[in-house]
Amino acid sequence: MAKEAVWSMAFILCIAMAARSEKEINMVFYMHDVVAGSNRTAVQVGAGSSIKPGFGAMVVIDDALTRTPSPDSTLVGRAQGMYLSDSLAILTSPDSLLAFTAILEWPGEYSGSTLSIQGGNRMFMDQREVSVVGGTGKFRFALGYATVHNVSTALQFNVTVRVP
Amino acid sequence: MAKEAVWSMAFILCIAMAARSEKEINMVFYMHDVVAGSNRTAVQVGAGSSIKPGFGAMVVIDDALTRTPSPDSTLVGRAQGMYLSDSLAILTSPDSLLAFTAILEWPGEYSGSTLSIQGGNRMFMDQREVSVVGGTGKFRFALGYATVHNVSTALQFNVTVRVP
Amino acid sequence: MAKEAVWSMAFILCIAMAARSEKEINMVFYMHDVVAGSNRTAVQVGAGSSIKPGFGAMVVIDDALTRTPSPDSTLVGRAQGMYLSDSLAILTSPDSLLAFTAILEWPGEYSGSTLSIQGGNRMFMDQREVSVVGGTGKFRFALGYATVHNVSTALQFNVTVRVP
Repeated sequence: MAKEAVWSMAFILCIAMAARSEKEINMVFYMHDVVAGSNRTAVQVGAGSSIKPGFGAMVVIDDALTRTPSPDSTLVGRAQGMYLSDSLAILTSPDSLLAFTAILEWPGEYSGSTLSIQGGNRMFMDQREVSVVGGTGKFRFALGYATVHNVSTALQFNVTVRVP
Repeated sequence: MAKEAVWSMAFILCIAMAARSEKEINMVFYMHDVVAGSNRTAVQVGAGSSIKPGFGAMVVIDDALTRTPSPDSTLVGRAQGMYLSDSLAILTSPDSLLAFTAILEWPGEYSGSTLSIQGGNRMFMDQREVSVVGGTGKFRFALGYATVHNVSTALQFNVTVRVP
Repeated sequence: MAKEAVWSMAFILCIAMAARSEKEINMVFYMHDVVAGSNRTAVQVGAGSSIKPGFGAMVVIDDALTRTPSPDSTLVGRAQGMYLSDSLAILTSPDSLLAFTAILEWPGEYSGSTLSIQGGNRMFMDQREVSVVGGTGKFRFALGYATVHNVSTALQFNVTVRVP
């Protein structure tokens, strides 16, 4: 009996260690990149290249993140950072390096937490994918990805992250 | 008896596999972002936006990292990279995208190793947090975070990373 | 006997959980950063600093990645992003912040997948190292590093990533 108690405890320890497992969190939000007008949230800085028009143009953003594609829906955060036009085949495949901090105002537990998002935003593709390279607050040690696609005037980010 | 030996070996294997666990490393350093004078280490490049003054300004840095808040204390590395002013509410919440490589000259084992740090530096907050998104040398496969706050003229980075 | 069956199943479960282990993938490719001529793939945008010539200069790239050092060898992807000259000791240690998305056209399973690469490219060192901070497609949740060194006119990236 005593021996079995030892086995049992060893098992529980072993499973507990193995199970120290990550939690997978899914989140959907919509980014509003307003490049013109009095409510613009995205501003090009610098001129880009004079050799290849448009190539190298950097746009700095402070875009609203909302719960649905409607810009008037609940604000759940802001996307602060930039994108950089980095495709020589700019007319046929307008890729850009996207790098921003998603500062969440998510109702409840994620408020104040952030995600660092980075990747090649391949705008000509209906479905593309970028990386979640880190996070803070509830997303410390986060790693993941987001699929991105256009929904009316917004960009849908369908984010999957794993945290310890 | 033979059966118990098999059980024991299986246990040891199991625990060893589960325990292949990460090491958590803590480090504190102070960053000196000198934006003016003959010893400046931070230089604004580009003009930012003409629409929203200051928004989009990019500052390139090669800042000293020291062991204490005093700029004359032991040098433990350099922070090379940039920050980018990316908050439309620039006067009340001057956030910036911070992205740099901390090239460590840490005495002993971390010398020559680097950490890639990225995140929203929310300068109006006394305590804010950025991500460690990767590393090299002793910090290969690193992931973590740093809390940041102002200590006299320096920025304190309290870094926590996990490495395999 | 029934009891032993329970033990056995518990073991198997435990080992399976512990073994949910990562796969390590190695890849070598060569980057061609062509900064001049009619086939240039790298263009400086912005002027850098007027205070420290060259410091802060940003170069946007859409560089070919090939299988061997020869620019005419099989194309296996493109490196889209930028590097930023961020060393005050620019003449003796021309470091730069390198941040790009490697969009792979790797024959077979990695085609369309990407790696996000970031770090301090310490160009004066024969061997240096940058981080893989994330990935997409087959490289979702990737983390790793790349050693970098010059091979004739190309940059060899020897990439090691771990994926779940």
